Amino acid sequence: MSDTPLRQPAFVLVRPQMGENIGAAARAMWNFGLDRMRLVAPRDGWPNPRAVALASGAGRLLDEAGHFPTTVEAVEGCTFVLATTARGRGLTKPILSPEEAMAQARDHAQAGGKVAVLFGPERAGLENDDIARANAIISVPVNPEFASLNLAQCVLLTAYEWRRQTAEIDHARVELAGGDWATALETDKLAEHYEDRLAQAGFFFPPQKAEHMKTNLRNLWSRMPLTRADVQILHGMMRQMVRWKERGD
Amino acid sequence: MSDTPLRQPAFVLVRPQMGENIGAAARAMWNFGLDRMRLVAPRDGWPNPRAVALASGAGRLLDEAGHFPTTVEAVEGCTFVLATTARGRGLTKPILSPEEAMAQARDHAQAGGKVAVLFGPERAGLENDDIARANAIISVPVNPEFASLNLAQCVLLTAYEWRRQTAEIDHARVELAGGDWATALETDKLAEHYEDRLAQAGFFFPPQKAEHMKTNLRNLWSRMPLTRADVQILHGMMRQMVRWKERGD
Repeated sequence: MSDTPLRQPAFVLVRPQMGENIGAAARAMWNFGLDRMRLVAPRDGWPNPRAVALASGAGRLLDEAGHFPTTVEAVEGCTFVLATTARGRGLTKPILSPEEAMAQARDHAQAGGKVAVLFGPERAGLENDDIARANAIISVPVNPEFASLNLAQCVLLTAYEWRRQTAEIDHARVELAGGDWATALETDKLAEHYEDRLAQAGFFFPPQKAEHMKTNLRNLWSRMPLTRADVQILHGMMRQMVRWKERGD
Repeated sequence: MSDTPLRQPAFVLVRPQMGENIGAAARAMWNFGLDRMRLVAPRDGWPNPRAVALASGAGRLLDEAGHFPTTVEAVEGCTFVLATTARGRGLTKPILSPEEAMAQARDHAQAGGKVAVLFGPERAGLENDDIARANAIISVPVNPEFASLNLAQCVLLTAYEWRRQTAEIDHARVELAGGDWATALETDKLAEHYEDRLAQAGFFFPPQKAEHMKTNLRNLWSRMPLTRADVQILHGMMRQMVRWKERGD
């Protein structure tokens, strides 16, 4: 039991291009009271004076924004990662509306988890490699004939839904249930362990399919709701298979 | 009871200033399938080439937009008028969230009514004279410390709520892109495969803990939302580890 207020999700802008859009995203977040921004490899470097100019009134978010070279590092320690994308991208992953996603994020935060939401670069959106690290996809139910949401609009709708889903408990004190979910970093290390050993074992064959197979495998781990204990079992299994091989009996 | 599709609300931009914002509002509407725009005395006249330039893809809304000299004329014939405003303005009027407002609008439209939503000019917002003509006020639950929604964002959130309130599909239902769930039998066979091979490899050690370890492992597989493709990958991984061991290289 704890008196900690509900932990906000981190909004992670992955490889954003225009500084203006970073500033507009900060304003969109702060309109709904969210102030935890993280940036992954912004195209024009960081800090960016054009972002500051556009963020007027929400500049504090930029000052305090985390800045990371990779998505993996930006979501290290997060236990529930959502990826916003217009397309399914052929990865098997639950697809949630913003409403459903923020309701799950709220529940996860109430249970003591750490939530991150990934937003892709303006033109291309998130790459499969980023999406594969997420637990679920957020898909805004736009007009199928016309889906032209920009970065700040996508941030705005997600922030609005967070506010809507948490309105009643906004200032309530929540219980920290000590959730034992694996962090994104722990899942990432598990994926790496399997990838390395399976590569040695010749699993990724033929070579032209290797990247695709690796992405699918990463997607499998990140989609699972893995606990720390699961991660330990899975590491242990792989270690044992290697020992068995090395014993050569 | 009728088979006519639900009549959309008209979105009425009252004395909009920048053509760009009219174009952006058209895009925001069309993102959520709304295409009935009305304009009241746009500052820079009508048509406006800067609006057209910004509306790319949603230009049809501008071509078809009604153009009126006054708000009164723009909402003539409407039976339920909503006014968006950040402030209460001292008028006694129901104040609704976007969600409540679009739910009422939907009910009104279903009953054969005609709904209009008024949006004010960029800086000043709606005047009391316009608000006084509305049946209710829509107030977006923004951060009281920072309310900086622009015209297109306000249109976007309202259009999003209309779409949400009228969506036939149940967004709470979790969809799965590109996958088909494994059956209990398939999961069971996967568990057996791993159990047999891990037993050979000496994973279940010490013997008095073996049963407990096997139960944990079965629990892990059955708790996962595994697809058929996941099951194939997991079988393939294990087979490859065994081949590697047998090759003895």
